[in-house]
Amino acid sequence: MTDPKLSIRSARQNDLAALIALYGDDDIGVTREAMEPDDAYQTAFDTIQSDPNHVLVVGELDAKIVATLLLSFLPGLSRHGAWRAQIEAMRVSSDLRGQGIGQAMLDWSIAEARKRGCALVQLTSDRRRADAHRFYEQAGFAPTHFGYKLSLETP
Amino acid sequence: MTDPKLSIRSARQNDLAALIALYGDDDIGVTREAMEPDDAYQTAFDTIQSDPNHVLVVGELDAKIVATLLLSFLPGLSRHGAWRAQIEAMRVSSDLRGQGIGQAMLDWSIAEARKRGCALVQLTSDRRRADAHRFYEQAGFAPTHFGYKLSLETP
Repeated sequence: MTDPKLSIRSARQNDLAALIALYGDDDIGVTREAMEPDDAYQTAFDTIQSDPNHVLVVGELDAKIVATLLLSFLPGLSRHGAWRAQIEAMRVSSDLRGQGIGQAMLDWSIAEARKRGCALVQLTSDRRRADAHRFYEQAGFAPTHFGYKLSLETP
Repeated sequence: MTDPKLSIRSARQNDLAALIALYGDDDIGVTREAMEPDDAYQTAFDTIQSDPNHVLVVGELDAKIVATLLLSFLPGLSRHGAWRAQIEAMRVSSDLRGQGIGQAMLDWSIAEARKRGCALVQLTSDRRRADAHRFYEQAGFAPTHFGYKLSLETP
């Protein structure tokens, strides 16, 4: 069950260090993150905060940031001009998983997507994250697609 | 081989009817599209055109629109504040597939993503589109993720 004290809201500037720590608190994420706030993170944070179609969401418990996701509202011409909501970079603190925090974050995001008139919510999940797959399917998401990535970074 | 006369560019207002026809020229897409321009498509078109982070791309051959995709540039905090490019709603006219048009559209999009400093290009493809999967893998995309969708539309 979700702790009733969980507060879900948009991120603020002084959450940034805690968010970066959350990205690193993950077997897959740790390989591709710096561990401290720097100009690259700050610029990205400012870009997200300046565009109302992107909401950096945090879950806060006992004054500590314990979860995050990026919720983006994307226009499109297909599906009869439907808006879609997209979730990226969802993380729950490794010591607090399995307690409903992720579900509460998803529920909040789905409610926002409905308010914004989106026709669907979409996300991709790394094939290695078997626990995440069960979680998304229990939450009603259908694994109807394959997700392809092409890295543009020089190795 | 791609026809050298293929022209790839941003969509214009008078492409809209041809784009909608392309969305319908597809076994999966036909079930969820209207077949004529209407207010919903026009509003979506205007929204896309007003935001420089979304580019509705068309491929034109002999003065006919034969391919399209929506290329979106998405900010993010994860992966050290990386921008990502996302491709949605890629279509090639059903009578012109297998001739390199899709590859040329992808190449154009990847070049744009590099110009914009994106760290990766991503897309999802319906599990039923086996031909598309071979195509994306030949183009260098890795099927590292599963793509989940949650419909918010009442059936």
